[in-house]
Amino acid sequence: MSSSAIQLSSAAASSSFLSPSTFTTREPSASLRRRSPGICLCVASPPSEKTAYKTKVARNENMAKLQAGYLFPEIARRRSAHLLKYPDAQVLSLGIGDTTEPIPDVITSAMAKRAYALSMVEGYSGYGAEQGDKNLRAAIASTYYRDLGIEETDIFVSDGAKCDISRLQVLFGSNAKIAVQDPSYPAYVDSSVIMGQTGLYQKDIQKYGNIEYMRCTPDNGFFPDLSSISQTDVIFFCSPNNPTGSVASRDQLTRLVQFAKDNGSIIVYDSAYAMYISDDSPQSIFEIPGAKEVAIETSSFSKYAGFTGVRLGWTVVPKELLFSDGFPVAKDFNRIVCTCFNGASNIAQAGGLACLSPEGLKAMGDVVKFYKENAEIIVDTFTSLGFDVYGGRNAPYVWVHFPGRSSWDVFAEILEKAHMVTTPGSGFGPGGEGFVRVSAFGHRENVLEAAKRLKQLYK
Amino acid sequence: MSSSAIQLSSAAASSSFLSPSTFTTREPSASLRRRSPGICLCVASPPSEKTAYKTKVARNENMAKLQAGYLFPEIARRRSAHLLKYPDAQVLSLGIGDTTEPIPDVITSAMAKRAYALSMVEGYSGYGAEQGDKNLRAAIASTYYRDLGIEETDIFVSDGAKCDISRLQVLFGSNAKIAVQDPSYPAYVDSSVIMGQTGLYQKDIQKYGNIEYMRCTPDNGFFPDLSSISQTDVIFFCSPNNPTGSVASRDQLTRLVQFAKDNGSIIVYDSAYAMYISDDSPQSIFEIPGAKEVAIETSSFSKYAGFTGVRLGWTVVPKELLFSDGFPVAKDFNRIVCTCFNGASNIAQAGGLACLSPEGLKAMGDVVKFYKENAEIIVDTFTSLGFDVYGGRNAPYVWVHFPGRSSWDVFAEILEKAHMVTTPGSGFGPGGEGFVRVSAFGHRENVLEAAKRLKQLYK
Repeated sequence: MSSSAIQLSSAAASSSFLSPSTFTTREPSASLRRRSPGICLCVASPPSEKTAYKTKVARNENMAKLQAGYLFPEIARRRSAHLLKYPDAQVLSLGIGDTTEPIPDVITSAMAKRAYALSMVEGYSGYGAEQGDKNLRAAIASTYYRDLGIEETDIFVSDGAKCDISRLQVLFGSNAKIAVQDPSYPAYVDSSVIMGQTGLYQKDIQKYGNIEYMRCTPDNGFFPDLSSISQTDVIFFCSPNNPTGSVASRDQLTRLVQFAKDNGSIIVYDSAYAMYISDDSPQSIFEIPGAKEVAIETSSFSKYAGFTGVRLGWTVVPKELLFSDGFPVAKDFNRIVCTCFNGASNIAQAGGLACLSPEGLKAMGDVVKFYKENAEIIVDTFTSLGFDVYGGRNAPYVWVHFPGRSSWDVFAEILEKAHMVTTPGSGFGPGGEGFVRVSAFGHRENVLEAAKRLKQLYK
Repeated sequence: MSSSAIQLSSAAASSSFLSPSTFTTREPSASLRRRSPGICLCVASPPSEKTAYKTKVARNENMAKLQAGYLFPEIARRRSAHLLKYPDAQVLSLGIGDTTEPIPDVITSAMAKRAYALSMVEGYSGYGAEQGDKNLRAAIASTYYRDLGIEETDIFVSDGAKCDISRLQVLFGSNAKIAVQDPSYPAYVDSSVIMGQTGLYQKDIQKYGNIEYMRCTPDNGFFPDLSSISQTDVIFFCSPNNPTGSVASRDQLTRLVQFAKDNGSIIVYDSAYAMYISDDSPQSIFEIPGAKEVAIETSSFSKYAGFTGVRLGWTVVPKELLFSDGFPVAKDFNRIVCTCFNGASNIAQAGGLACLSPEGLKAMGDVVKFYKENAEIIVDTFTSLGFDVYGGRNAPYVWVHFPGRSSWDVFAEILEKAHMVTTPGSGFGPGGEGFVRVSAFGHRENVLEAAKRLKQLYK
């Protein structure tokens, strides 16, 4: 406890030990990502720094299993590197699926009004219910689940579907085994790894142990061959799909629900793009009879109202969904929400309520329509160039086949030659190899410019 | 896969199976909380409901370890029950620590402006950096950690300290062993249980197995006897403390840092009430030399600016903090933040930036001063009634001793006789038994009315 001992330790912890150039949280360097022990000491450094203090806390071995960076930060890193190389390039981003169009006035006005009201005694509110504002929960239930037997109390409002996916993984715990569509949104797999549900990454097959990868390809219409899928606890299923843009039909979802029931599995149905459906495919898993006994649904305002930065979503956990011992899943999820979360921002929730007003619904419909027009332009462009193109009709994503080529090579080619960011299909799982995902989120002029550059590149 | 089979299942899943009256997510009934298997079937029900479908997914055994409800929802439940009993009672809430005073104009104006800007092409933004807006990170670093060697890249902006506590637990994983002050904010223990770090709850001693409870009582000045504490991986330490309102001195924190260093532990320092410190106690653990090698700090705008509903906080993970294998803790936390979170709401972040402007800082100072005056009224009230009173001078919480009595009994007495909600000390751990926490968050007239009722009750 002597002060001299403390000063000694302090000296060893010089803040120059890890300089920003060798350690940047947002853009991990290749050497750091290799996870070699004592990585930071590989950098040429004065002898004193070799004795840097280490705690005795062991790194979480599940974290060590994760491969490279999470996909989208990795893409951002490559984009930044490209900009360093070509400082004057007009880089077009059809990559990470980030919305670009302004939020309709009716929605932002409601949020601004709520913000102002927080300055007044009568308008101020502190902690809201962890599960979300009662009116918003009721509005979500009546807007998206009318006549489906989903009630206000089944709805948990959140700061977004990605965050809820992790909370669901915490709910299921480390003994759960999951299945994912292959390819699929990376957060399902990465959160499963973090929770310790998986084995090590098997580099040769590009899969983690103890995850069931349900291959979705053009050959099976992007719906897995369920007869070849082994039993798992949880099936993550996204429709309209990210990244393939495919939508599951009523018949397919009926088979999925029956498959879950036969196996005793729980489906986590990601319907974040449901409003992009134009045909008669279900917009909710709860349109399928019996789904309330086997499914959770997670969704979001991000891609409907441009709320990617505002952060608002919801998860439906029906009271009919029971663990094997009969305990309601919703009760445990409620406990997770109350302990690990404190509700979405009240201002964002006011925006959500405005989204679900008649004017808000119309305005969201217009936003969705705009991005769907973009998707059509992208589909037409690649089709005219002779590519096999999937998705884009009921989804804001276009899935383009480059047979026999590496996704990352195609990504690099399009970035290098057309200054355009896309997303390599293999980033979504081994089933995405040979594909590139092109996002329809963009200003119209950029999408048209992208179409022009692509026609130049692949003419 | 036949449709008749599905219809059969659907019938078995009648949505009336669990009616709202027998299953409400927000207010668990006592019988549900007992976790008996098949609980819902205990309710008198037609025979057909006894065959309700159950999945084969096992309930996460860690969730089953949790006792009763999370403290604050449980208090809300009792408050509601009281209001049913006394519909006309003017119930005063000095319980859950919820802010009541309006947010200063300078801050709400910035949020409203940001909301409006999202409707304009030039003002719109989608996904922000998961770690938070660069300017906000820089402002937090320069406002609260100037000259302490904490940089912008060490700051992770979040939707609140409670949420970050859970993300930190996910970071450490199920093999970590934690220590907590006893009593302490319940989220540390409950999130540890959820992550599987603990043994079962031991009812006789009111502790979970494999957690080190560091007793904090008037006898030790609410600072634990470190010589009696066994080695753990993570030490949660909150100062100014919730619930005791005590603040650790520079000398005490120097000993804590040295203790962590001697044991190789990581301190998670919760400084959510640091702005309430009037004396020369440290407002950040990083004021202690060497702390960057052993500590993480989590904090929040909730109790400074009334952001309990707006949701904004931050966590500092210094680049100097290393796991036993030399891997930087911040790199793994960054991965958690990128995978399990998507950034705090951009509108809330605009508010945070306004909080840290010169006008915002002054306005927050006024808010804090107001609540501290409340605390003084509460301290004076109980003192005048002859109680031993702790806290309230550097914290918004007053910790009142009722020797030999059960905290819940005192809670019930004050609720029943004075229509006032407090928080039973035992809800914060066995070390809180015999105490009640009184929160200074309230309108002045309510605090004065509370003082009057208390003087009536305990005269």
